[in-house]
Amino acid sequence: MALLKKLIKFEEALNTLLNLAKPINEVEELPIIKAYQRVLAEDIVSPFDIPFYPRASMDGYAVKASDTFFASPRNNVVLKYKGRLRTGEVKNLRVNKGECVAVATGAPLPPGSDAVVMLEFTELEGRRVKIKKPVYPGESVSLPGEDIEKGEKVLRKGEMLTASKIGVLAALGKTKVKVYRKPRVKILPTGEEIVPPGQPLKKGKIYDINSYTIFTLIIESGGIPFLSPSLPDKKEIIEGSLKETQNVDVLIFIGGTSVGEKDLIPEVLSKHGKIYFHGVQTKPGKPFLCGEIEEKIILGLPGYPASCLIIGYVFLKPFLKKMAHLPYEEKTVWVKMGENVYSPLGRHQFLTVKIEGDKAYPVFKESGDITSISQAQGIVHVPENQEIIEKGEKVKVYLF
Amino acid sequence: MALLKKLIKFEEALNTLLNLAKPINEVEELPIIKAYQRVLAEDIVSPFDIPFYPRASMDGYAVKASDTFFASPRNNVVLKYKGRLRTGEVKNLRVNKGECVAVATGAPLPPGSDAVVMLEFTELEGRRVKIKKPVYPGESVSLPGEDIEKGEKVLRKGEMLTASKIGVLAALGKTKVKVYRKPRVKILPTGEEIVPPGQPLKKGKIYDINSYTIFTLIIESGGIPFLSPSLPDKKEIIEGSLKETQNVDVLIFIGGTSVGEKDLIPEVLSKHGKIYFHGVQTKPGKPFLCGEIEEKIILGLPGYPASCLIIGYVFLKPFLKKMAHLPYEEKTVWVKMGENVYSPLGRHQFLTVKIEGDKAYPVFKESGDITSISQAQGIVHVPENQEIIEKGEKVKVYLF
Repeated sequence: MALLKKLIKFEEALNTLLNLAKPINEVEELPIIKAYQRVLAEDIVSPFDIPFYPRASMDGYAVKASDTFFASPRNNVVLKYKGRLRTGEVKNLRVNKGECVAVATGAPLPPGSDAVVMLEFTELEGRRVKIKKPVYPGESVSLPGEDIEKGEKVLRKGEMLTASKIGVLAALGKTKVKVYRKPRVKILPTGEEIVPPGQPLKKGKIYDINSYTIFTLIIESGGIPFLSPSLPDKKEIIEGSLKETQNVDVLIFIGGTSVGEKDLIPEVLSKHGKIYFHGVQTKPGKPFLCGEIEEKIILGLPGYPASCLIIGYVFLKPFLKKMAHLPYEEKTVWVKMGENVYSPLGRHQFLTVKIEGDKAYPVFKESGDITSISQAQGIVHVPENQEIIEKGEKVKVYLF
Repeated sequence: MALLKKLIKFEEALNTLLNLAKPINEVEELPIIKAYQRVLAEDIVSPFDIPFYPRASMDGYAVKASDTFFASPRNNVVLKYKGRLRTGEVKNLRVNKGECVAVATGAPLPPGSDAVVMLEFTELEGRRVKIKKPVYPGESVSLPGEDIEKGEKVLRKGEMLTASKIGVLAALGKTKVKVYRKPRVKILPTGEEIVPPGQPLKKGKIYDINSYTIFTLIIESGGIPFLSPSLPDKKEIIEGSLKETQNVDVLIFIGGTSVGEKDLIPEVLSKHGKIYFHGVQTKPGKPFLCGEIEEKIILGLPGYPASCLIIGYVFLKPFLKKMAHLPYEEKTVWVKMGENVYSPLGRHQFLTVKIEGDKAYPVFKESGDITSISQAQGIVHVPENQEIIEKGEKVKVYLF
């Protein structure tokens, strides 16, 4: 057994990790209905004008604007009704001087016309239409390219696809789109005491919690998680598991990175690759490990469920989001601390809290506990040089 | 063609809609790894204590606390080293007076011991261990039920499953969980001018944008969307489409609810079911329609892409989230308006904006345009009695 010799500071660990996060540039093509929240791997350029013909932007009558110039509610201009054009319909109806054609919104503007008089300002009587308001040329007409011009770059590489952006793809007639593939992450729990849920639990054993919290967090961070049964603390087995780097982008060991006699992962990692840091001056999270083997990042998360998940939120999530080209936005809220909280000097503390009304209350019981954190809504950072947050003090909560 | 006769106010429309949203109480059982962001349809009660045996919560030595009471850095207590207990290991090692057993974090506490001295305060020399600090009974020990007690209700019906809550399910050994099924929503675009993306576009036709924006929005709102080819504006066909109520929870017609000659949906709806409202005093969204047939809600969204999506965000999203038992939290931010904006009196306006720095700028070009809204990040509500938002005025942006 050995104590960790040199802990690095929180900011240094986070910066190191984010610098190591290489955005994945491999591309996959997806149907647009599967592309929600995926990240564009191509610029999208419009192959045609939208609209690609002049069209009515209101229900009404297509006219020659000049015919209406002196129309008013008192002095209607009367035009000859020449027919009706439905949306999507193409008919050979030409508007000559003194004529008009009824158009529905979106209908192509009939040849000869240059404006639309809104329905509200007209009155149809037999084959004649009374026009009660002048229109200028182009009024209530959408011109070709008014929304999107041919050749216009409408979406850019790196944009995350939302409902409206998927709508833009549809507008251009696209059924498929190129996006970056998601980072693939293998979760490797360690320790003979770890039993997968669903099996009977014997004395000395506990169910594997961390694989499932981290599995979920990887999905939340835009990655694809892969589960594994727990690895026994045997050097050959840990070494054997490293070949998983061939199948995935990141390996995450859970447990086995602390100071116990059997903490083989740092040993194996320094033998076959390199260690960037082992041990961060944070609470929880002291045994957090980051290394590399054959250009794949290897992380070691603490085995305590609450610690594991907190380190997951603080470090793993921004790391994976960067690999996935996804924006990492911290959602924060300022509230008052509901009670006095003490924090160890010399360690940056991640204090899990729940929010009730406008107050935050700590919910952390012990780093082994999962129930407490399951009620937590966010984290308060307590810097290493702060020993107490007083009741009523304003704190910034980083929401999960 | 007929103008809409009576428009209802924004708040009335939203309240009506939310009152009509019946949360779906049918249940499905899922593997816990598929349950992220699903809503629990059962209370989760722990079948056993967690931990279910006393265990070490630190690496160190299991001792009888009373043996250590007078230990100090200067006056070490020396105990006999009796062996080592790894996490997950069960050995027949009893701690008698004057003895100790090395334990790893999580290891079951050996019989006879009642506390753990942390590694930092000990020194192993051959078969003897120097103890440099007193511990109280129970120190660095997790007692049975300390995290979760047998019979304790740890998660409740209606909670949305997050990473930590899925962790709680795993801690209890569960592999499956009961959740509410998602609302199923059929999207029915109308209009002969609507062509699905992927087909060639002829004059007078436009690609179906709305089906894809609303498809995505339904996913975002916790529902399952189903696409359909565009329905021609024929009464029998609209009537025939109503049998879809047998397969889904909500029908959404898009287009065909405005004032055009061919707006059959209100007609068909009043014949076969009822209309709650048709026409909301908002901009955009005037032709928004809400009705019911055989206890299924039927909505009619405007055909203009930007209008359709805005009405989707403002009305459809909270409606579906309620049906899905999901919390509807508005994410808002206060920023300054970047330019003067004029708004029609008498209509509550949803102004789409993008945010640059600390300023919001309108991005809405025309309700037919999809590009503009694709760059929007949120909506500013302009009440019906406000005619201008001045440059520099503080506005609340509801983020998408």
